[in-house]
Amino acid sequence: MTDLIRSWVESANAKTTEFPLNNLPYGVFSQDGNSGRSCTAIGAKVLDLHGLEDAGLIDFGGALRAGDWSSFMSLGKREWDRLRTYLQEALAEGSDAERALAPHIISLADVQLLMPFTVSEFTDFYASRHHASNVGRILRGTNGEVPPNWLHIPIGYNGRASSIAVSGTDVRRPNGQLKPKDETMPRFGPSERFDFELEFGAIVGQPSSGLISVETAFENIFGYVLLNDWSARDVQAWEYQPLGPFQSKAAATTISPWIVTTAALEPFRVAATGRELPLLDYLQEGSPMLYDVELEVALAPPSGIDTVITRTNYKYMYYSSAQQLAHHTSSGCPMRVGDLLGSGTISGPEKTSRGCMMELTWNGQEPVELSSSESRGFIEDGDTVTIRGHAQGAGFRVGFGACSNRVLPAKG
Amino acid sequence: MTDLIRSWVESANAKTTEFPLNNLPYGVFSQDGNSGRSCTAIGAKVLDLHGLEDAGLIDFGGALRAGDWSSFMSLGKREWDRLRTYLQEALAEGSDAERALAPHIISLADVQLLMPFTVSEFTDFYASRHHASNVGRILRGTNGEVPPNWLHIPIGYNGRASSIAVSGTDVRRPNGQLKPKDETMPRFGPSERFDFELEFGAIVGQPSSGLISVETAFENIFGYVLLNDWSARDVQAWEYQPLGPFQSKAAATTISPWIVTTAALEPFRVAATGRELPLLDYLQEGSPMLYDVELEVALAPPSGIDTVITRTNYKYMYYSSAQQLAHHTSSGCPMRVGDLLGSGTISGPEKTSRGCMMELTWNGQEPVELSSSESRGFIEDGDTVTIRGHAQGAGFRVGFGACSNRVLPAKG
Repeated sequence: MTDLIRSWVESANAKTTEFPLNNLPYGVFSQDGNSGRSCTAIGAKVLDLHGLEDAGLIDFGGALRAGDWSSFMSLGKREWDRLRTYLQEALAEGSDAERALAPHIISLADVQLLMPFTVSEFTDFYASRHHASNVGRILRGTNGEVPPNWLHIPIGYNGRASSIAVSGTDVRRPNGQLKPKDETMPRFGPSERFDFELEFGAIVGQPSSGLISVETAFENIFGYVLLNDWSARDVQAWEYQPLGPFQSKAAATTISPWIVTTAALEPFRVAATGRELPLLDYLQEGSPMLYDVELEVALAPPSGIDTVITRTNYKYMYYSSAQQLAHHTSSGCPMRVGDLLGSGTISGPEKTSRGCMMELTWNGQEPVELSSSESRGFIEDGDTVTIRGHAQGAGFRVGFGACSNRVLPAKG
Repeated sequence: MTDLIRSWVESANAKTTEFPLNNLPYGVFSQDGNSGRSCTAIGAKVLDLHGLEDAGLIDFGGALRAGDWSSFMSLGKREWDRLRTYLQEALAEGSDAERALAPHIISLADVQLLMPFTVSEFTDFYASRHHASNVGRILRGTNGEVPPNWLHIPIGYNGRASSIAVSGTDVRRPNGQLKPKDETMPRFGPSERFDFELEFGAIVGQPSSGLISVETAFENIFGYVLLNDWSARDVQAWEYQPLGPFQSKAAATTISPWIVTTAALEPFRVAATGRELPLLDYLQEGSPMLYDVELEVALAPPSGIDTVITRTNYKYMYYSSAQQLAHHTSSGCPMRVGDLLGSGTISGPEKTSRGCMMELTWNGQEPVELSSSESRGFIEDGDTVTIRGHAQGAGFRVGFGACSNRVLPAKG
């Protein structure tokens, strides 16, 4: 495990910052509502990379002045590495670049963070053994076994890209068709079982048009965001057979504002555990492909006090993003820059490490208690759901920034 | 039913042309591999609308010089109507625009047709009662009943936009996970049950961010294409539970090169028949919302002789594109210009009006005979599948041009 890399930006050397020099996540900021500018986070600051390219201090052919990270991603891994190397040198303690860079540093507290990239298409997977097992029990009355294909296929479905928004965006409770089991006809109205799903989103940074091998997949994945795949459970239960979730997941998906790069997460790779059956060749991994990233979800009622309702880890997943990308391309399906792959809900083995309300409250039957002495079966109007996550190094953290969104009442 | 509108382009007045002045479909052409130019089809000719705007004969703010129809679509229905009105006057028999337009007319035989618009996202529905019933029998061993939600919900799922291609593009047979019922482990290899699906594609031409009513939906739908949702049935059978089709449908979806506008199809509206249960308010139609469009699929083996293997009609659908768009937006899901909604496989009531090989051959058990005295259970390498369709007026046709694609062997 690497140590903290010290920076001349003093706040980047704190044990608790999510943005030490080891991290260098990529985002897009705006001041006073102006258009977005590419930046990186360093301690309590952002470094305006748009400004650096404007000033001629770095040259990526204008890709850092394009408004978001999609153009830069398309340049490929060599350029990704070149920028990271430059930043790690220029921001390092003792660097002679301090004087040149200082005018381009702004306090994180003074900026608004926007969508960091343009989402081409969104795919959501179903890759936690614990989640799949719990959902089977709850929705299909199974005894906890997973579907027969689950141990062979990184099961996924196409999601909706048009409703993806960044942390801070309010989420409107969806309307939809509801049919409680004891009624004979469905009705149309606000979802009564609105849920979050704690996920990890992998961002495809290179186009492709054939099978990507698991071993080379990380060369195509630019980085990761925290992801909340908001889900209307009552709509889902009625609509999802036989072709999968549709309107139950279409109202909103929210992501954290910082793309933590594949390079920054490299020291935190861990192997999947509990492989029950051998995988087909095209899915086999030769090295650890998950990450040890601690995750938590807090729920705040309108009164505003956060209660952490689950703590889990990305390392619990059965399939990695590399395996998901390999499977996604197995048919020859072309990938494009900006494709977003959701990991699937990340549930751990404990009751307190489940990644959505449906599992935490067993479909609303066992409400979670909030510190405000309220309780919740599902998410209520005015509630704010916040996902946080970081990899823990030796005396430093590589964090994602929060993915935090408040729920508004359904449209009448 | 309107009569033929005569044009000074003589070939547009023939009873058998698909492109009389009543039609005016929109496409994109290229000559000698140059970049795409927006055009309309008139008889055996194309009219170069890019050239018309270049020459100052029409002015749509450059939208006709944008390379495809997405920019023009975003202008909205008033501008859609203004272009159609202009073209119907300028191309009409006796128009004094003939001299000015003549230099911009090119023989259809001399051009290559490209993708007519930029696909934002692709959604595929499941809206033929006959198809749903047959698929239930074949894949789930039912007695022909549809799933309980089917009579209430226009069931749909998100498809993959990156693999949509225009007629004429070769389609590569996908590899995928196959698990025949009599084997215990899946294997990875070329699909052995590769199929077409005959569909109608509705193109969303306006952005939205809330529920669209069925009655106003046609103001948001720019037009229609024929669509082939290529499907690997063996991959599909193994992967699709519980989250729906994924890699089985991701290799390719192909569309006809001409967008036949909602305005051109207006005279051919017909009401859905056989509504078994009343629909919820947000799905009820006050007027006929399907179209009487005759459809056929021909299959040609490598020897090249077409055999028509099915004849059906879009009027057999249970749900219209207007109802599908209403449902798609019911959660608040934002729509964008260029969203493509596949109707779902269009199967009629007869054995000879089924819209895919799986139904026509009952999953390969009853092969269809070709005129070459070969037979087919599914599509073989080198086969070409061609979808054709037209609405029949009084002495004229409004046609789509063919959606024709050849299948290449899977990658090794």
